[in-house]
Amino acid sequence: MGSGYLKRITFDQNGLVPAIAQQHDSGEVLMMAWMNREAVQETLQTGRVCYWSRSRAALWRKGESSGNIQRLVELRLDCDGDTLLVLVDQTGPACHTGRHNCFFTAIREGSPEIISEVEIPPEEMYGAKEPEA
Amino acid sequence: MGSGYLKRITFDQNGLVPAIAQQHDSGEVLMMAWMNREAVQETLQTGRVCYWSRSRAALWRKGESSGNIQRLVELRLDCDGDTLLVLVDQTGPACHTGRHNCFFTAIREGSPEIISEVEIPPEEMYGAKEPEA
Repeated sequence: MGSGYLKRITFDQNGLVPAIAQQHDSGEVLMMAWMNREAVQETLQTGRVCYWSRSRAALWRKGESSGNIQRLVELRLDCDGDTLLVLVDQTGPACHTGRHNCFFTAIREGSPEIISEVEIPPEEMYGAKEPEA
Repeated sequence: MGSGYLKRITFDQNGLVPAIAQQHDSGEVLMMAWMNREAVQETLQTGRVCYWSRSRAALWRKGESSGNIQRLVELRLDCDGDTLLVLVDQTGPACHTGRHNCFFTAIREGSPEIISEVEIPPEEMYGAKEPEA
């Protein structure tokens, strides 16, 4: 597969681009993370979603410690190429808290409110391993 | 309305946080833009979505020149508070190209492919005015 598409992506001053992961069939927005060139290429080549972990400064193969992988369905770019939309098929919870997606806090009447339940407790997902991020 | 929720949001070194706009009923991801504290507050206070335009270095009241406003349905934060998901009711196309959403380029077989049509030509949306961004 060619990599001409990389020229269409605008990476920021840190070499990163935000990537929104959306469940391909339900439309649920699961999480937002960052990719560098290598993560984009690996994602397209392997069909498994790989991010760049800013905290660990390393490639982050989603699900490598939790098993909660994201299979790539389609990668899309926005109109100015500085944001990616990654359509995925998510296995298990996407969030390190064990919730299905990361956007479980709503602002209602000016106050944060938790609106979804933990599906799998983190200690069960990760055991003694470091939670992913 | 209190603004205690602001403490839950992690703004980056430029005082900005990425905000993903999603159509509340269909689940369509419309666009990604940035908000500063003032934009978040204005959005919650007025119920109309306001971003921060990095190119113009000014508040960007979505739809102010095109009429294609976003009514706020709910604002959500992700697990570490550094990304917002804005559930909206979008009037007209969200994208400055006149397409309904900004993610109209898919990478297929390693090549970019346009996958959606222009609904309203930009010159019709903006007339002699500057396209929004």
